Amino acid sequence: MNKAYTDLKYFLSPRSIAIVGASNKFDSISGKPLRFLKEHGYQGKIFPINPKYDELAGIKCYKSVLDLPEPADLALIAVNYKLVLPVIKQCAEKGIKSASVFGSGFAESGEEGRAMQKELARFAKDAGIAICGPNCQGSVSLRDAAIGGFSAALQLRPLLVGPIGYVTQSGALGYSIFNLAQELGVGFSYIASTGNEMDLHTLDFMEYMLEDPETQMVISYLEGIKDGKQFVRLADRACELGKPIVALKVGRSEIGQKAAASHTASLTGSDAVCDAFFRQKGVIRANDIEDMIDVAALRQRIPALPRGTGLGIITTSGGGGILAADAAIDEGLEVPELGPVTTQAIEKVIPAYGSALNPVDITAQVINEPEDFMHVLQAMVDNAGIHALVIVVTMIAGESGRHMANDIVKMSRKTDKPITVAWPAGERLMGDNLQILIDGGVQLYKSPVRAVKAMGSLMKFGAFRGEVLARKPAKAAEAASGKARDAAHALLEGAQRTLTEHQGKELFKLYDLPITREEVATSEEHAIKIATEIGYPLALKIDSPDILHKTEAGGLKLNIADQEQLVAAYREVLANARAYNADAQINGVLVQEMVRGGTEVIVGMNNDPQFGATIMFGLGGIFVEILKDVVLRVAPLCREDALAMIREIKGFKVLAGARGRTKTDIEAIADVLVKVSRLAVELEDDIAELDINPLLVLPEGEGVRVADALVIRK
Amino acid sequence: MNKAYTDLKYFLSPRSIAIVGASNKFDSISGKPLRFLKEHGYQGKIFPINPKYDELAGIKCYKSVLDLPEPADLALIAVNYKLVLPVIKQCAEKGIKSASVFGSGFAESGEEGRAMQKELARFAKDAGIAICGPNCQGSVSLRDAAIGGFSAALQLRPLLVGPIGYVTQSGALGYSIFNLAQELGVGFSYIASTGNEMDLHTLDFMEYMLEDPETQMVISYLEGIKDGKQFVRLADRACELGKPIVALKVGRSEIGQKAAASHTASLTGSDAVCDAFFRQKGVIRANDIEDMIDVAALRQRIPALPRGTGLGIITTSGGGGILAADAAIDEGLEVPELGPVTTQAIEKVIPAYGSALNPVDITAQVINEPEDFMHVLQAMVDNAGIHALVIVVTMIAGESGRHMANDIVKMSRKTDKPITVAWPAGERLMGDNLQILIDGGVQLYKSPVRAVKAMGSLMKFGAFRGEVLARKPAKAAEAASGKARDAAHALLEGAQRTLTEHQGKELFKLYDLPITREEVATSEEHAIKIATEIGYPLALKIDSPDILHKTEAGGLKLNIADQEQLVAAYREVLANARAYNADAQINGVLVQEMVRGGTEVIVGMNNDPQFGATIMFGLGGIFVEILKDVVLRVAPLCREDALAMIREIKGFKVLAGARGRTKTDIEAIADVLVKVSRLAVELEDDIAELDINPLLVLPEGEGVRVADALVIRK
Repeated sequence: MNKAYTDLKYFLSPRSIAIVGASNKFDSISGKPLRFLKEHGYQGKIFPINPKYDELAGIKCYKSVLDLPEPADLALIAVNYKLVLPVIKQCAEKGIKSASVFGSGFAESGEEGRAMQKELARFAKDAGIAICGPNCQGSVSLRDAAIGGFSAALQLRPLLVGPIGYVTQSGALGYSIFNLAQELGVGFSYIASTGNEMDLHTLDFMEYMLEDPETQMVISYLEGIKDGKQFVRLADRACELGKPIVALKVGRSEIGQKAAASHTASLTGSDAVCDAFFRQKGVIRANDIEDMIDVAALRQRIPALPRGTGLGIITTSGGGGILAADAAIDEGLEVPELGPVTTQAIEKVIPAYGSALNPVDITAQVINEPEDFMHVLQAMVDNAGIHALVIVVTMIAGESGRHMANDIVKMSRKTDKPITVAWPAGERLMGDNLQILIDGGVQLYKSPVRAVKAMGSLMKFGAFRGEVLARKPAKAAEAASGKARDAAHALLEGAQRTLTEHQGKELFKLYDLPITREEVATSEEHAIKIATEIGYPLALKIDSPDILHKTEAGGLKLNIADQEQLVAAYREVLANARAYNADAQINGVLVQEMVRGGTEVIVGMNNDPQFGATIMFGLGGIFVEILKDVVLRVAPLCREDALAMIREIKGFKVLAGARGRTKTDIEAIADVLVKVSRLAVELEDDIAELDINPLLVLPEGEGVRVADALVIRK
Repeated sequence: MNKAYTDLKYFLSPRSIAIVGASNKFDSISGKPLRFLKEHGYQGKIFPINPKYDELAGIKCYKSVLDLPEPADLALIAVNYKLVLPVIKQCAEKGIKSASVFGSGFAESGEEGRAMQKELARFAKDAGIAICGPNCQGSVSLRDAAIGGFSAALQLRPLLVGPIGYVTQSGALGYSIFNLAQELGVGFSYIASTGNEMDLHTLDFMEYMLEDPETQMVISYLEGIKDGKQFVRLADRACELGKPIVALKVGRSEIGQKAAASHTASLTGSDAVCDAFFRQKGVIRANDIEDMIDVAALRQRIPALPRGTGLGIITTSGGGGILAADAAIDEGLEVPELGPVTTQAIEKVIPAYGSALNPVDITAQVINEPEDFMHVLQAMVDNAGIHALVIVVTMIAGESGRHMANDIVKMSRKTDKPITVAWPAGERLMGDNLQILIDGGVQLYKSPVRAVKAMGSLMKFGAFRGEVLARKPAKAAEAASGKARDAAHALLEGAQRTLTEHQGKELFKLYDLPITREEVATSEEHAIKIATEIGYPLALKIDSPDILHKTEAGGLKLNIADQEQLVAAYREVLANARAYNADAQINGVLVQEMVRGGTEVIVGMNNDPQFGATIMFGLGGIFVEILKDVVLRVAPLCREDALAMIREIKGFKVLAGARGRTKTDIEAIADVLVKVSRLAVELEDDIAELDINPLLVLPEGEGVRVADALVIRK
């Protein structure tokens, strides 16, 4: 068990809680924690601390932290920000290891606060005290009523306990979401509101919750991601455990980012990288609080994750089915054909004007023949291509509606294929029928689109997980490390900040990347010798660490057809280079194979402040210049990631051979992406940026060539 | 007033209603209309008709339609489908002009039903009876309780009357949506459910509702559009009246279309054309029933449409503002900077850790200083760049929440800038405060994203309307018609089904399109003469109605530099053409200017079964081949439409001169689009298809040239 997991049990399962600054104003920030702990029946020890009182709400009150009979597992610090540091010092003296600091006045409110937060951080670190906050709304374990917060959202009774863990970087909005979810019937295991994240971060709490056996999903409101690599590890672990992470990550737009930057102290980071990471690792991204609540509500109701993306749709009105089918396609789900067995079974029990296609339209005929509905349900559940069901019911009121609701409840208990219902009707008219579903544990939506979106999120996670678990382990060559790195370090140490093209390619050779055949010539004779080995046509390029813009310097000659041209070009390139920069150190002239044909693509590597090395891929020319048609992933890449990247660009058809084009060597591109990602990871501390532009892609089976390379050291 | 408007008042404001097949089972389809009419207090005359009863629910019951004391304004036909035609015949005899036919068993259920519907249609047309249905759920006027339907959704009391008209092609789903909207507080003027649309169509009812002075918006559930041109007229009228049309048009996906085709008898049409039309004409497209209800709910609460797309966001928690800002950018709204006056006014009353940017974060400090909130509201409303406000409130419970709610109500009564609130919290905790807003007439959402989406739809409509009203009337040349058409007809009559390139260009000349300089040469000497006039370089193309694939036939020579090459090419082109097709009629050889440089774009015209002539625009090459980067509009186009099309393609930057490219003559492209659209409209009955590929676009100020043309007659 790692450190975070050990520490955080004091926050999320404390056996005793001290409330520093506890007050008898039970509606205030300092008064509410005690009130909530008592009202919800917390079974651990409670130590209110305030020199003004002897007892509070019938519990002995202590004058100071130092007076406590024992070190509490968790201290809630509800005092003015100026008193926080002295209190934390007392905690250290007393041996308290965990504290949530509620007060604002720190980094979020200017220079003085930032300085104070820094001092607090330094002390806490030295003293080995883990801090949640400051400016946070604390942590809660709903299971054992350990209410370490003060939000009005915690005053509802009972709080619904369930399988959803929840971390939030916003206290006020975060608890609003929690309250809304609770009133919609979503049960939680834990909440953590992390405020300024001086020490503990949302991801730390997320990690703890993921490992909790009773937590089946973690949802999160995020403005910034402190440690992308930690998130990558967590996402991998979540996939392994089969516990989806849902991220309501805001700041997608520039205006949103600006607002986020002014709201939290931290940088929000690049949303493009973040979004790429979510897709790469199966994190479910929500764009609205309702999206997040919808998927959490569904997860807690279904017996298991769906195992694929084949959605079955049943409706009592054609329109409901069409609406759901449109939404399914939007979500990237399949709405598979049902095949003759299922179709025939359904056709037997629906009228001629219904439809036994998927979506299945049983029509309002179900009002007259309610017992037929179960046959349709059974036929759909029995179909191997169907991994989950969305049922859209319309104006089926009264007895027939009750019958349908009861059948759905029955079937959802019989099968482990998840079922949900969209019933777009109000409570006054349809309340009784809706209640049957709710009581029967079936998740219910008003909107067919929202039902499909929620189910779709879980289906895609389930399918992604299945694919990841089925992946072959990476080849030994890819897994091996260290050998190339030592040679790379030696090479980099000898180079300037920006490597020459040839140095870059030497570096790539160490990682087995397919570079153009080339050699640096130091004389005309040498150039002729190299040219004879490589064969014409050739390119000549000046090789100098002081001349990076070769074209501008006249240091580049292409399509050299024979020896005569070679000699002339050699002289010209050298003369141009000297004229361009008389002081330049010139290593020689690079004699390079000219690769004919080949489609230009670009492979790049960058360092993201949150996620570290990221890999970029795109088609060259107008695709990158005009359309910004590039795709990102976080390193390292597995082969499946690389192939997914290639398929994801808009211009993929150019590579796949559309409209009479030759199919290109896509496998070889994937190979390059994987190798570059390995290089990027191994040399992350050494390389700031890397560009292969262009990588020339030859027809299928003929590979690729790195035609130009730019490597910039850190 | 047009015919539809006259007829439909019998459906939507009937002074008397006959119910044919009325029953004493007041829960059945045939029993409910009478019950609903009585329960809701319909003041007109009711004539139940059923030979079995002397009276029903205390009202005299008639044996037959023929026995009625007078012709009812509207007959509801609630008899078995086999009896519908005989009943309609009686209606004709009695002088009843309007009937809603509820029964199914017609076109939706197979061959026999289709035949029966055909016969019914023929009779009704001859007899001058307007029919809603069959297989419909009828029409309702909520204002005068004229309940011409039987849906369970109509049993709620009271039904909320309001400014929203509603037409639906689905009865069951349609009334589900109505019920949901009613329970969410949306008031309606009229409903029409049109079933098989044998005669009256959703658009007919939509037209009536738009003209109704008490109706401020028409919402619609649509599967297919019978008459696109009618919809275009309606959308123009809606814009003029300032009454938005919201269309929940399903069948966006292929699977959805297939399901729609199996559900309704009619073709759903191309969703791409439909979507283009919506954008072109300001129709608000909803993709979910909640989207549609959200915008209707908002429209009924605000005093006037917003006049622009500048959104002001106020929040009590940074997170809420960021979420709303992201959504605003997604919707294409602006979140403008506030300028010093507003900023300073706000900074005076919010704490340092808040934000006076837009979004404005007033923080939970409002709990302590509730009176400051009104200053912020006032400052935002006073800002000329702000056209509407979305306020995101989080966990502000109790007295301070009440204060906020009351201030919002006050301000929304003072200003005509629309205000809405997102308050993501449950009823149990926050119900009292939420009720203040509801009672105060402020539309309330749980989700900031949904609040922004609903407001954004109205803002975009308001801005669109303002832009349309400000448009200059089309130039006389564009408005003039008829002259070119006569010449075009003569030209087309002399041509085969597919015109030669030269014929196509002659046609284009009539509409003043800028074609390449060219002439058909009938001899070498003639060719030389033409060449001397046009100047080199030139292209030669065989001109034959029997050789359409000129390249394939060797009938095309480009870049002819001088007279010598011209003569050789002339002979070669002729010889190749004769070898390719010895029987081909050869008009001569087209001698054509070679346009140098120029960016290739494509302009096309097609005939859509619903909307008639549609105009297509795109960039040539990979943009159209690989990326399908084309945009559609319905003809005729105004100049603003044409410019919007050009700007809408993904590759627009190529034309606008990105990355060192020359800016091209965008105005000249717009000119061509407008002229082609005029041609398309005038010759809609004559031309099936038209393609300008390529249109060569020269640098700004230098115009464009139609370099090749394909015209296919109908």
